Amino acid sequence: MKLCELGEFELIKRIKARVGHGSGILRGIGDDAAQLEIEPGFQLLTSTDLLIEKSHFDFAWTLPEDLGYKAVAVNLSDIAAMGGTPRYLYLGLACPGSAEVERIEAFMDGALELAENHGVILVGGDTCSSPGPWVISVTVEGVVPAGRAIGRDGAQPGDVILVSGTLGDSALGLSLLRQGGVVEEALAMRHHRPQARVELGQALAETGCVTAMIDISDGTVSDLGHILQASGAAGILDVPKLPLSDAFATALRNRPDLVELALAGGEDYELLFTTAEEDLAVILAVGKQLGIPLTPIGKIRSGEPVLYLRDASGHEKSCLAHGFDHFSPTSGSGAS
Amino acid sequence: MKLCELGEFELIKRIKARVGHGSGILRGIGDDAAQLEIEPGFQLLTSTDLLIEKSHFDFAWTLPEDLGYKAVAVNLSDIAAMGGTPRYLYLGLACPGSAEVERIEAFMDGALELAENHGVILVGGDTCSSPGPWVISVTVEGVVPAGRAIGRDGAQPGDVILVSGTLGDSALGLSLLRQGGVVEEALAMRHHRPQARVELGQALAETGCVTAMIDISDGTVSDLGHILQASGAAGILDVPKLPLSDAFATALRNRPDLVELALAGGEDYELLFTTAEEDLAVILAVGKQLGIPLTPIGKIRSGEPVLYLRDASGHEKSCLAHGFDHFSPTSGSGAS
Repeated sequence: MKLCELGEFELIKRIKARVGHGSGILRGIGDDAAQLEIEPGFQLLTSTDLLIEKSHFDFAWTLPEDLGYKAVAVNLSDIAAMGGTPRYLYLGLACPGSAEVERIEAFMDGALELAENHGVILVGGDTCSSPGPWVISVTVEGVVPAGRAIGRDGAQPGDVILVSGTLGDSALGLSLLRQGGVVEEALAMRHHRPQARVELGQALAETGCVTAMIDISDGTVSDLGHILQASGAAGILDVPKLPLSDAFATALRNRPDLVELALAGGEDYELLFTTAEEDLAVILAVGKQLGIPLTPIGKIRSGEPVLYLRDASGHEKSCLAHGFDHFSPTSGSGAS
Repeated sequence: MKLCELGEFELIKRIKARVGHGSGILRGIGDDAAQLEIEPGFQLLTSTDLLIEKSHFDFAWTLPEDLGYKAVAVNLSDIAAMGGTPRYLYLGLACPGSAEVERIEAFMDGALELAENHGVILVGGDTCSSPGPWVISVTVEGVVPAGRAIGRDGAQPGDVILVSGTLGDSALGLSLLRQGGVVEEALAMRHHRPQARVELGQALAETGCVTAMIDISDGTVSDLGHILQASGAAGILDVPKLPLSDAFATALRNRPDLVELALAGGEDYELLFTTAEEDLAVILAVGKQLGIPLTPIGKIRSGEPVLYLRDASGHEKSCLAHGFDHFSPTSGSGAS
């Protein structure tokens, strides 16, 4: 069935019928605004993203259910990067009237699957027509105990820089998908269904030992650059220490230039954060407990916010923290 | 200058430089999520909208500063319709790299002008490229004292239906703008710069006498239909009582069919609400105090959620509460 046959109000009714209930939701879908109760002692965290067909995603190599999953994941990841707990989801969806209702429902399947996994409930949004591309807006509201949120601005000279998981898989996956060949499942999934590190972000915030944190969306170098700029400090990154998956390491052996993807590919949605040297053991214990690799990859230095990359021979070069610029004609990644 | 020459990070820096500060904002633009303090005893209200070029707006007859103004207004209106106070604004903006930076800044001028008028502060958003149309997402968070929010679902048989201001001006203005002729300023402004009835919504909520409320975006008939459906009641609307501006009334004398625009044109952004007969005097006093006309236009009846339209001769006909359906090929309005 085409969307123009189903109609907007019927679409909203169908979405509403699938949505769960939760404590704190006084009004969800179906009024002018969602009305929510924030517990005393908690602060509100809000993140929002826009995703546009052909700019952020392409149905040629993306299933609608993966798109829904990822659209939610990138916002959960933002809440995770503040050390918060995501709670409420708002979805704006614009597509042409000729869009297949099945595709929209598959998109909703993916979005709601991930939301439910995290106890996040859809409480509002907007549906409208697009003259061309699909457009998706996602807003996630979360909470954090007062005083526990982690910003980008607290990194101190001497702090260790760590990253969760492995880097570059999503960008490598996308690059292979675009070439149209067979892509190893693990790499494709890192691109299509990134895991928001929500539990890790909360656990790290609970230690009180993390001085700055960000999630890697633009790319390691660029997002580390955001921490350096916000904190007013320099940083050194040991390139050989970047954690790589087996699949990525295998590809890298044939094409050493692929290291760029681990440095600047983006869409890893891993947590990149800093901690004082003396707190490193506490932090590493958190990773061990959750079964998530946490790898020290560099250090914060005093000085202007410049990032230095150090290679295996110990040679350092300064690196402009240029990440993915959505408006630059030379940016070729699909990062959001 | 073109946006692709300025770059995304420079654009964000420029926007950030223009934004004010306010109490309760622990982190605004420049981190993964906004971090906000909600006062004890208050609840959170959140509204979000998507606006797409050629579907919701057209630069052929819309100035970018008006577009920014209106994009914010429609969300403030949603918060107003709950009786709340808007506080925080999130803007997502996608445009092609070839977009003129001046146009983007004019858009921001309009958006921030209206936000500032209401003490609303921009605390986050997203910027990215679009392969074609401009896309704007707006999210507004507001607060309301616990227990004071007004939904759509409380209308009771016997209640009086009231509306603020005048109806149909925005739709008439748009229709004339599309024809390309000279359009009376008052009508054009109703379309380009709708006034969100924030102060009125708060004052009405404070009376404790409003049983249901909605803002008119889809159209009077459709939005009243939402109240009837949510409240499980019928309604009768006296068409001759619809409040009309002088400009609209003049146009109506030549073309009686234009009454459709007051009934179903949409984008009025007036408040449509219900109150018990015995509380009518309290409500009308609020309108008088604020200098905003409040007009009784009908009554709630018991029965299935059907809306009846009564003409000057007292003849009633039932009316399917079909409003603007974004995906219907027969919907011709520019309503959002």
